[in-house]
Amino acid sequence: MDWLEQIKWTDDGLVPAIAQEAKSGRVLMVAWMNREALLETARTGRGVYWSRSRAKLWRKGEESGNVQRISEIRLDCDRDVILMQIDQEGGIACHTGRHSCFYQRLKDDQWETVDPVLKDPKEMYR
Amino acid sequence: MDWLEQIKWTDDGLVPAIAQEAKSGRVLMVAWMNREALLETARTGRGVYWSRSRAKLWRKGEESGNVQRISEIRLDCDRDVILMQIDQEGGIACHTGRHSCFYQRLKDDQWETVDPVLKDPKEMYR
Repeated sequence: MDWLEQIKWTDDGLVPAIAQEAKSGRVLMVAWMNREALLETARTGRGVYWSRSRAKLWRKGEESGNVQRISEIRLDCDRDVILMQIDQEGGIACHTGRHSCFYQRLKDDQWETVDPVLKDPKEMYR
Repeated sequence: MDWLEQIKWTDDGLVPAIAQEAKSGRVLMVAWMNREALLETARTGRGVYWSRSRAKLWRKGEESGNVQRISEIRLDCDRDVILMQIDQEGGIACHTGRHSCFYQRLKDDQWETVDPVLKDPKEMYR
């Protein structure tokens, strides 16, 4: 696929992908994709990533049920970052049970946790 | 600084930073920061990055005038990505003269350029 090869992949064959919630504009998470993950994301309209820690494809929501529906895929000028508009099923993108992974805010030289846990992770992953 | 050391820096001492326009919610760019860049960003409220190609600090807008004013700095759950809310002076974040660096959209297996050039780069960089 030409469009896949036009991406500037890392030496490990990965590209970072930002998932932005279409309806709210909130950035929910950033994760890595390899060619297979991005191709499956584009073909199926569901968020698929490459888990570096588990070294395998990670179909977002396969355990938690929190599937991501993709409405748009963009690429930046350097062709090394992907930006997706998504609808986050269940309203939870973070493995901590929060809406967004970006729940820590810098204030007075400290990272403050400012977003609530919406669901106990123990209930999300069985 | 404790808060700086709580970040999971790459082996090269870098972290990717997403600049999101506060008023529109648009993701404008992603660039790298080292400790010095992030500390200066936090202290001055202006976007400062680390240019890997030039191997030096890059004070956004120092040539183009398109300074970024930072209103919020967040960190994700893995502590390896920064998300900033910004006000983009001049309305142009991309070196191509566009509002956002994410101006290419995937459609029918092609990357389509969907956002206009607002200013000739030749006029931005003298």
